[in-house]
Amino acid sequence: MAGKRVAILGATGLVGQKVIEMLVERKFPLACLRLLATSRTAGSFIRVLDEELRVEAVGPDSFRGIDLCFFAATAAASKQFAPTAVESDAVVIDKSSAFRMDPEVPLVVPEVNPHHLRSHRGVIASPNCSTIQLVVPLKPIEASVGISRVVVSTYQSVSGTGKDAMEELRDQTDDALHGRPVRTTVYDRQIAFNLIPQVDEFMQDDYTGEEWKMVLETRKILERPDLPITATCVRVPVFVSHSESVLIETRTQVRPSDIRSLLSTAPSVVVVDNPAERRYAVPLDAEGSDNVLVSRVRRDLSHERGIWMWIVCDNLRKGAATNAVQIAESLMVQGLL
Amino acid sequence: MAGKRVAILGATGLVGQKVIEMLVERKFPLACLRLLATSRTAGSFIRVLDEELRVEAVGPDSFRGIDLCFFAATAAASKQFAPTAVESDAVVIDKSSAFRMDPEVPLVVPEVNPHHLRSHRGVIASPNCSTIQLVVPLKPIEASVGISRVVVSTYQSVSGTGKDAMEELRDQTDDALHGRPVRTTVYDRQIAFNLIPQVDEFMQDDYTGEEWKMVLETRKILERPDLPITATCVRVPVFVSHSESVLIETRTQVRPSDIRSLLSTAPSVVVVDNPAERRYAVPLDAEGSDNVLVSRVRRDLSHERGIWMWIVCDNLRKGAATNAVQIAESLMVQGLL
Repeated sequence: MAGKRVAILGATGLVGQKVIEMLVERKFPLACLRLLATSRTAGSFIRVLDEELRVEAVGPDSFRGIDLCFFAATAAASKQFAPTAVESDAVVIDKSSAFRMDPEVPLVVPEVNPHHLRSHRGVIASPNCSTIQLVVPLKPIEASVGISRVVVSTYQSVSGTGKDAMEELRDQTDDALHGRPVRTTVYDRQIAFNLIPQVDEFMQDDYTGEEWKMVLETRKILERPDLPITATCVRVPVFVSHSESVLIETRTQVRPSDIRSLLSTAPSVVVVDNPAERRYAVPLDAEGSDNVLVSRVRRDLSHERGIWMWIVCDNLRKGAATNAVQIAESLMVQGLL
Repeated sequence: MAGKRVAILGATGLVGQKVIEMLVERKFPLACLRLLATSRTAGSFIRVLDEELRVEAVGPDSFRGIDLCFFAATAAASKQFAPTAVESDAVVIDKSSAFRMDPEVPLVVPEVNPHHLRSHRGVIASPNCSTIQLVVPLKPIEASVGISRVVVSTYQSVSGTGKDAMEELRDQTDDALHGRPVRTTVYDRQIAFNLIPQVDEFMQDDYTGEEWKMVLETRKILERPDLPITATCVRVPVFVSHSESVLIETRTQVRPSDIRSLLSTAPSVVVVDNPAERRYAVPLDAEGSDNVLVSRVRRDLSHERGIWMWIVCDNLRKGAATNAVQIAESLMVQGLL
């Protein structure tokens, strides 16, 4: 396979660095790699395999001669630079929320809707982390028995916010443990030994941006524009991996054991579920894995077609960088890149 | 009001100590106070107001001359000593799970079902912490519009497990922050910077004991033996206060603003809910309060009669000690003690 000329915008951020790591780990065929940043971090160096690569400030000429670029910066940066990249004939895989709900932009999780890539016009959006880990196990259930409702409560790690939030959790925890006053910078409220039931800003119907993303992106990816789905999103004092307590209603009644069997052969899903041996997935288990871990599959005592699941995933890998790289791989397999 | 001769079994535990604190804080009329323990802690001293009280080892004669005793030890201790106490003509308010589902024992949250106290035969059970904070706001909704379904995901603090668990969270956090190996003793899995989707042991239908308690106790307290209700219970790295992400379906369609109005006048409920000002309750807000805080009241995008709530409460106070002392107060007001 011919190597691709690849650029990464936002190369110094948590997700950007993870994209570099995933390209190397998954042996993505690279002809060259250009690292770009919008911020003060331009000018720094990042070691990739045996080379020290300089991070360049992004500009109008940054995408000349580039086949593929990963955008892992802000939504504003994506909106500003995606047209430039596409004009330079580069394909953009965008991790930001900028284009996700644009009807002309495919929003893709390769295990779920790889066929949507065929209609791309230069920009492909990778979904929000909480959405990705939800749709990966939902898809085989939707395909096999059909889903009539989804109710989610999330337990989201601070790495979803970025490096500063990880530092804040560390600092606040240290201060709280030693009885020192706790300073809040990234979050409005203390996150150490606490919970924050607000992820992203408040929007319509008193739902937060994160809750709307889960609702709208899931509907788009599953091609179910009217799917009844709702979510409450909560930040928890965990560094990496998001967890979700998910209740679904299926179209026809199924047993928890049927769902476990179905998911045990689903791509990127690992069922970790043995109550007798007290086996279930926790965030620390998922960290560093590209799989979505599913536990505590059981019947809903309040509805005959209800099924509970506990879903855990590394939000920086499958929830972000891995999914973006898998989109690139899928483009190549489908001859679209 | 004549003072009561009161005993506390489990006086050295987290809840036992909080019961002492609540009796003093709420100026419960005490003629005398006897502190009892089953464990190695008998023989120690606890300061109550200006007196150093010796903790006695519980025995067959411990309840002679006692009017009222609070049981805040294990379920096994409750089963062993409740008959002795009742034979001595003491009324037992039991915080353990020993008698909660006994049809002859009232299970009481004074704001919700104080009338159940009238049928007591010596033993009154105080519900599980997660149940108490759920039924306090559910009751006015059930009474006013009716509830047809309840779906709960919990975020429970380690103080629900006891002092050792609080120490474990502290030690593990300190070790993890400083890159030292983390030891697990109380919980099977690391709780620092992690989540454990198991509270209590696994039982029927792969639900845990805690999940069954929420289901069965809520049905009993609300006198709705067939109420459709289900729960997933998760331990989080928070010291004090449990949080619950709750979705209810009401019998008739109501607006979130109607629910907010209804709850704003409900006993022991404080509505903390202003998205425009980013106001909502977090566990640290509830710590030290006897109120149940309700936030993020909003419509369910997946069901026309669905309403979301975020419910936070100090699990050691209203979730345990305060409720037990309020039961005693209600007994006195009703002339039952």
